Amino acid sequence: MRITRRKTFNAGHRLFRQEWDDIKNREVFGSCSNPNWHGHNYTLFVTVEGRVDPETGFVMNLKALSKLVDEFVISKLDHKNINLEVDFMKGVIASTENLAIGIFRQLENPIRDQGARLYCIKLWETENHYVEYFGGKQ
Amino acid sequence: MRITRRKTFNAGHRLFRQEWDDIKNREVFGSCSNPNWHGHNYTLFVTVEGRVDPETGFVMNLKALSKLVDEFVISKLDHKNINLEVDFMKGVIASTENLAIGIFRQLENPIRDQGARLYCIKLWETENHYVEYFGGKQ
Amino acid sequence: MRITRRKTFNAGHRLFRQEWDDIKNREVFGSCSNPNWHGHNYTLFVTVEGRVDPETGFVMNLKALSKLVDEFVISKLDHKNINLEVDFMKGVIASTENLAIGIFRQLENPIRDQGARLYCIKLWETENHYVEYFGGKQ
Amino acid sequence: MRITRRKTFNAGHRLFRQEWDDIKNREVFGSCSNPNWHGHNYTLFVTVEGRVDPETGFVMNLKALSKLVDEFVISKLDHKNINLEVDFMKGVIASTENLAIGIFRQLENPIRDQGARLYCIKLWETENHYVEYFGGKQ
Amino acid sequence: MRITRRKTFNAGHRLFRQEWDDIKNREVFGSCSNPNWHGHNYTLFVTVEGRVDPETGFVMNLKALSKLVDEFVISKLDHKNINLEVDFMKGVIASTENLAIGIFRQLENPIRDQGARLYCIKLWETENHYVEYFGGKQ
Amino acid sequence: MRITRRKTFNAGHRLFRQEWDDIKNREVFGSCSNPNWHGHNYTLFVTVEGRVDPETGFVMNLKALSKLVDEFVISKLDHKNINLEVDFMKGVIASTENLAIGIFRQLENPIRDQGARLYCIKLWETENHYVEYFGGKQ
Repeated sequence: MRITRRKTFNAGHRLFRQEWDDIKNREVFGSCSNPNWHGHNYTLFVTVEGRVDPETGFVMNLKALSKLVDEFVISKLDHKNINLEVDFMKGVIASTENLAIGIFRQLENPIRDQGARLYCIKLWETENHYVEYFGGKQ
Repeated sequence: MRITRRKTFNAGHRLFRQEWDDIKNREVFGSCSNPNWHGHNYTLFVTVEGRVDPETGFVMNLKALSKLVDEFVISKLDHKNINLEVDFMKGVIASTENLAIGIFRQLENPIRDQGARLYCIKLWETENHYVEYFGGKQ
Repeated sequence: MRITRRKTFNAGHRLFRQEWDDIKNREVFGSCSNPNWHGHNYTLFVTVEGRVDPETGFVMNLKALSKLVDEFVISKLDHKNINLEVDFMKGVIASTENLAIGIFRQLENPIRDQGARLYCIKLWETENHYVEYFGGKQ
Repeated sequence: MRITRRKTFNAGHRLFRQEWDDIKNREVFGSCSNPNWHGHNYTLFVTVEGRVDPETGFVMNLKALSKLVDEFVISKLDHKNINLEVDFMKGVIASTENLAIGIFRQLENPIRDQGARLYCIKLWETENHYVEYFGGKQ
Repeated sequence: MRITRRKTFNAGHRLFRQEWDDIKNREVFGSCSNPNWHGHNYTLFVTVEGRVDPETGFVMNLKALSKLVDEFVISKLDHKNINLEVDFMKGVIASTENLAIGIFRQLENPIRDQGARLYCIKLWETENHYVEYFGGKQ
Repeated sequence: MRITRRKTFNAGHRLFRQEWDDIKNREVFGSCSNPNWHGHNYTLFVTVEGRVDPETGFVMNLKALSKLVDEFVISKLDHKNINLEVDFMKGVIASTENLAIGIFRQLENPIRDQGARLYCIKLWETENHYVEYFGGKQ
């Protein structure tokens, strides 16, 4: 049994490698490498797996899950610059893939501490694409 | 190959345990334990798995699937009180998880009788959360 | 210039007239008259009209609008029984039309007090229908 | 008769007044005043009004309308910083309201040159709010 | 007070003028003039205006409205070829604009007979465009 | 890690077997067998699986993926008649299942040539149903 909580946040970012010049960055990352930043409305789906507790009928209390995601993810990302202000994104490209990995690692232990297992992070960056990360090797 | 049919229904419910008092119920279930009931627009996705019949190009005839879901699920839930009026929910908490399990059990055999296999019940209770049940241990 | 804030809430209700018997109620209101209640995920759009303040670029501060809607509408409706528990719905049928009128009247003055004008309440009850109320004669 | 074309773009921005300090900006604009920028997936609806041409059945050729919006609006906003890089937003707060006014003024004449009339700019900044501008006094 | 009912249907069509050759048709209508037909999932919003009946709380009974739309519109369009099989589209280009006008005329009188007034037909042909027709001169 | 690109296209089709008469075709395929064709707005989700390249943060460059899908799928299907004009659909029923298989086979090798692996084709034909094909036996 899996249960999924949807969350949204807005953030700014830029895709680029500091060791590349602007031409190389634009070649690889296109308009996403704009040095003046741009941003997105991200939509996040956090999926948790576990047994149904016969006493509550819940895999995990959704209010508790919501609170964890707010504390460990949304409060760090919402209205922030992903490249400059998000501790768990330091040193990696601010791609949707890396952001999903970072969010997974933020939530893995806090969810385990509540007796459930984080199954998947699904992250939409625009209405036209999303990534899914299931933990383990990337 | 999997094929999925979407359905919607509206129902009323309340999350509570009769052996708990109102304070304990509110502590665990929050505003969902309101004794005067509340309700939701549920969105249901029924996913069926099978081989493609070379004669029809279908895994399963969608009109037949739709009819089964209407007969075994929607007619029993739509505009009903899940706690009081739904036979397959008697004796369990009216959580989204238990509702998905109940729906799965309603459909498993009728779909098998038509030569396909019920793969997953996905059930949205609000735009912010859904559950997925794949059969077997919960 | 108009600005619109979306909000969601879940509630229970029943459509019926006490002076009619069950047969007459079912004839007029169909399955919506179920005596055991049912409910919906409502989606509310509050539209406010005004001049753009050149200092802020805002018709009205959205956080302030959001707070008003939460205080005067959402806190009174969310996870509630519209027939039994909502003061501004006492004595009227709990139809989407009457609910939109009730919400309009709740918000009209508080929004005027902040220097803007409530233009329209748009209320979805299911994905298949919504009502719009613009104030004045119904 | 009105016809509407939907478009999307992503951009970065910040809400602030240079003559105010950070505390005052945060008081009025909240987390939207973050000096490190953030951004959104904007959804734009351009509504044009006119008579139906009996020869084509069109109010206005949608491909032509789409091309105008791309040339005068999307190419100037997509993956850009609204405060720093968008000529028609110079000197105003980068609010959704002002952005809708700016887009209206960009499109008003090019659409009139094609024999139709720009009726409304509707602009969603998040899934929870949008503005509508109909021209004339703001 | 306005109330709106959403409906969907699928149909095939082609945009072309018989007196034009293929080159001229392709120039004006683009790929929509494909002689082998193509089609769409149309989404229709029928908006009705009226006073709220104090006895029922309704502007118009939604089940009755739904039945009218099914009888006068959906049954004539769903899984049909708009150019060849739809009586009220004979002799006009199968554009979204003309389809909205045709649907309006189909529904105007039947809705008036039930004591309400058809206010607007809104018709989406793709997720990227829709038309709105309010009756009277086109 | 999986990344998914959404695409849309409109097409016409008809479900029927030439060796069956109209009555048998209508019995099995219902109104989808209309000899005058009808059509849909299809929504396609192409999911690719792979390791995250540490240099770019990408599983696969989305612009490259988008270009492949346009070249091998969208250009062949958009505004086309699936039965008559699509080379990779010759000789099979134009069902959603067979269309998903055809699209999978179109994309499998081009995506492998770019170092990633096509994981799934998900194809919506209406808002009420979709199919998923993962390759291999159908």
